[in-house]
Amino acid sequence: MTIVLTEIRKGAYYDSVVLMQLQRALLGLPGVVDAGVVMATPANKALLAQSALLTESAGPALPDDLLIVVSAADQASAMSALAQVDALLTRRRSNAMDQDFRPRSLESAAAQLPAARWTLVSVPGRFAAGVARQALDLGQHVFLYSDNVSLADEVALKQTARERGLLVMGPDCGTAIVHGVGLGFANRVRREAAAGQGAIGIVAASGTGLQAVASRIHSLGGAVSHALGTGGRDLKAEVGAGTAGQALDLLARDPETRVIVLVSKPPAPVVATRLLAQALTCDKPVVVNFIGHPPPARVLGNLHFVATLDEAAEVAQRLATLPGTEAGDRPPRRAGFLRGLFSGGTLAYESVLVLQALLYPLHSNSAITAEQHLVDPLKSQGHTILDLGGDEFTVGRLHPMMDNDLRLRRLKQEAADPETGLILLDVVLGEGAHADPAGELAPAIAEVRRARPELEVWVVLVGTDLDPQGLAQQRAQFDQAGAVVFERLTEALHAIALALAVSPPDSGPPVALEVLQTPPAALNVGVEAFCESLRAQGAAAIQVDWRPPAAGNEKLAGILARMKKK
Amino acid sequence: MTIVLTEIRKGAYYDSVVLMQLQRALLGLPGVVDAGVVMATPANKALLAQSALLTESAGPALPDDLLIVVSAADQASAMSALAQVDALLTRRRSNAMDQDFRPRSLESAAAQLPAARWTLVSVPGRFAAGVARQALDLGQHVFLYSDNVSLADEVALKQTARERGLLVMGPDCGTAIVHGVGLGFANRVRREAAAGQGAIGIVAASGTGLQAVASRIHSLGGAVSHALGTGGRDLKAEVGAGTAGQALDLLARDPETRVIVLVSKPPAPVVATRLLAQALTCDKPVVVNFIGHPPPARVLGNLHFVATLDEAAEVAQRLATLPGTEAGDRPPRRAGFLRGLFSGGTLAYESVLVLQALLYPLHSNSAITAEQHLVDPLKSQGHTILDLGGDEFTVGRLHPMMDNDLRLRRLKQEAADPETGLILLDVVLGEGAHADPAGELAPAIAEVRRARPELEVWVVLVGTDLDPQGLAQQRAQFDQAGAVVFERLTEALHAIALALAVSPPDSGPPVALEVLQTPPAALNVGVEAFCESLRAQGAAAIQVDWRPPAAGNEKLAGILARMKKK
Repeated sequence: MTIVLTEIRKGAYYDSVVLMQLQRALLGLPGVVDAGVVMATPANKALLAQSALLTESAGPALPDDLLIVVSAADQASAMSALAQVDALLTRRRSNAMDQDFRPRSLESAAAQLPAARWTLVSVPGRFAAGVARQALDLGQHVFLYSDNVSLADEVALKQTARERGLLVMGPDCGTAIVHGVGLGFANRVRREAAAGQGAIGIVAASGTGLQAVASRIHSLGGAVSHALGTGGRDLKAEVGAGTAGQALDLLARDPETRVIVLVSKPPAPVVATRLLAQALTCDKPVVVNFIGHPPPARVLGNLHFVATLDEAAEVAQRLATLPGTEAGDRPPRRAGFLRGLFSGGTLAYESVLVLQALLYPLHSNSAITAEQHLVDPLKSQGHTILDLGGDEFTVGRLHPMMDNDLRLRRLKQEAADPETGLILLDVVLGEGAHADPAGELAPAIAEVRRARPELEVWVVLVGTDLDPQGLAQQRAQFDQAGAVVFERLTEALHAIALALAVSPPDSGPPVALEVLQTPPAALNVGVEAFCESLRAQGAAAIQVDWRPPAAGNEKLAGILARMKKK
Repeated sequence: MTIVLTEIRKGAYYDSVVLMQLQRALLGLPGVVDAGVVMATPANKALLAQSALLTESAGPALPDDLLIVVSAADQASAMSALAQVDALLTRRRSNAMDQDFRPRSLESAAAQLPAARWTLVSVPGRFAAGVARQALDLGQHVFLYSDNVSLADEVALKQTARERGLLVMGPDCGTAIVHGVGLGFANRVRREAAAGQGAIGIVAASGTGLQAVASRIHSLGGAVSHALGTGGRDLKAEVGAGTAGQALDLLARDPETRVIVLVSKPPAPVVATRLLAQALTCDKPVVVNFIGHPPPARVLGNLHFVATLDEAAEVAQRLATLPGTEAGDRPPRRAGFLRGLFSGGTLAYESVLVLQALLYPLHSNSAITAEQHLVDPLKSQGHTILDLGGDEFTVGRLHPMMDNDLRLRRLKQEAADPETGLILLDVVLGEGAHADPAGELAPAIAEVRRARPELEVWVVLVGTDLDPQGLAQQRAQFDQAGAVVFERLTEALHAIALALAVSPPDSGPPVALEVLQTPPAALNVGVEAFCESLRAQGAAAIQVDWRPPAAGNEKLAGILARMKKK
């Protein structure tokens, strides 16, 4: 039988390293069987309960309170352990990192280390946005490790940063490597590429994703020029990939970077589209791993899509060993919307899959996402992919592979729409299908082209040389009508994606490349280990002796902040 | 100014080819400007309206009624055109396919062509299930082209078929190629592989998907042994891939097939998992294109995942040129659930992504689908992937990359659970992380292994030889503790997927291979073009002169059916 004793410290703030070390110190005391030192959130209380460390005494503790719990063999040991808490906390302080003078504010820290261009913030989430804002006001780039920061704060911080040409990595940004120096959690990796190879730059909305890719590149013999984190929510619609866009732009301009890797959990579609459009404008290969997002292709222009982190590293390293860049020929950008009139349901569906990577807005009666749903199948809307073999079109009517009537009517309708810039048709040959689809479709295409010569009509011809319609004869008729003919759907889709891609986002004033070209000197607010790590890597860093405003009392802190403004 | 006249034929049934030909014939009459001949569904009325062919006269027409609309230069021409409708319908009849005697029922058709093993059904959706049921009762495999068939009917038909070792391809199955003969829509493709190569078998829950893959294989110089359709809904949870499972099994046993391609729109997760598990048991390479489903890998065992139809054909043809099969070494199957305890959020997420292909049920606090959501993060459930760096675990607590306390407790908890068969840990090294994670984790692993030697503990080590913790030293500690150590996440995940894959579904009595080894002889009910096409390909086929029961009156048909049963 053990005795569990609990102490509550109301509204007490301690660095989480201090709490961990206190817990360990308690565990080392005589008679102590287990110990827990945590903020009294419901989740933490549940975890204590699992270790049989939650008693009724913890009931009154609120999330901002500190819970110190000791389980011991007897009452005396437990009481003795709790009695030593203050002494243990003091001992920790005196053991802390060697730094003669500890500035109490960011301002004085910045004055003490004028070379600092970075501020690392790892204070508890509810205070983190305030500290980050101070750092931006001092003209600093921000590495925002803290999580539990509100989305609204993230949007506001990134907006401010963008206007000033500053970076905010995070919130919840675990890792970055700038000019060979790791911020937060970072593996030590090769920076200089072997002779004849190029270095790889990484943009990641994911911490361990970045670490796994960087480590694997290193173990493959490759080099990492820089690795820039963005925080896990950067590619959400509200945030709009503000930081990822800046980071991509930086690496595109960075002469040390030959290949770029872009890693993120599934991004919001509109954000992904714009970020990929930006990546397309870059004359370096970009390896894209939107984890869990169905890839539109293996390779599309200079974009290389991969399925896993390991594969991202492997493909990037292979590309880094190739000489020169990979811009290649781009088809000219075209105006107007795509109107795809399909007889093949799966061909329509695959078209949505491929084109959604770069076209926006995209609608279909064969949609992949709810947002793509075409409200009225009789009326196109933006870029539109129409499956004319869909159930709504085939009641009492032959399939469009047998009867061209519906397609001929729709072709005229789309050609009459001034918003239409390109019409795409599939023509599926073979047994059972119409005996001569080109015989009906090609004259209609020729008529459209005569009336609007600037309107392109593209045809994907699915069939073989053995098919009864004759592949070559069908093709010749479409050629003569002025259509552009493809025999592979993906070939047509890639050309369309490149020609009609959405415009890249306006990412504000560019971030000065200097940020990558100098070793980062930094102010650190929060977890001391990050400051120690910077120094161990040879970077200049200073620890700020931060305390929550008004000792963590948020109401009081609000009043103080308002007074300060006046 | 044109005159639009409308005729309504109440509850009239005509083959949709007849309707198309009537419309064309009307268009060819003097003075006729446009014409429409359609069943009066709301969708068809809307389409008529777009062509200015809908007048108030069509108002009373119901979906089962036929609408005949003529737009002409003057009243006389319009009236004259409508007056010729019956004559045009009769002319069409006499022009129809040459067949001396037209059986009125499936039974008499089967008696007339006793070699028939297949019935093709393309009657309107509401009658299709009934015809298919009759065919199954005659011991026939069914190619069910009709769409607009209810899901309940599909489930019931496939259940019956499975019990009897019969195939039901469809509903909404557009295409198949059996023993070189196309059913429905089908491209003519090479059947015999070139010397040294193998032929490719296709299973597709998608019509034009199958056609695109088959055509592309042909144009790459490859051969298609058989191509089996399943209908677009076969991989939905309710249907459970009944037909796809049978088809995969057939092709796995077929000596002519060296490589299998599996194409479908995104399947239901549980269905995909079981079908892939079945594919894993096959000793042929299987190329998987679940269109729009994020692939777990490029290659996993004998499964090759691709992004597009073209790529499916290209990868399959490349594999078909390789000698022999590809079973390779399989790790032994293991019992129990996986418990993944991650410090890296993205590593946890990628693990869910990869493992969801083959493990079921799978739960996580870093879920990809709603179904995977882990209700209580403190308690594992089935296969569980836990991100211990998730927001719910890090309030006032150091990240698990810095503090192992939470993981050590959870490791003990999982080891005490008899359902746990394998524990997976990631250990991320580098700046900022714990100075010696193995120093704390390895002893705990050793203790677990001592207590339960059959319980495996696997460790994925993310780091480099330059990292402060020392990759080799960390690895040595884990090795000594009896853990299996990986340095690539995907390597560990693939081994887990193969060892813990769900059991393949029980697919009932196997379909006799004979169905693939003889040219299909068929009864055709519905679109005559399919019968003509079979004969043009040299197959025996007979057209059934089908009429809807009780002339399409469903109430009366129901009464008749009940009377027949008695």
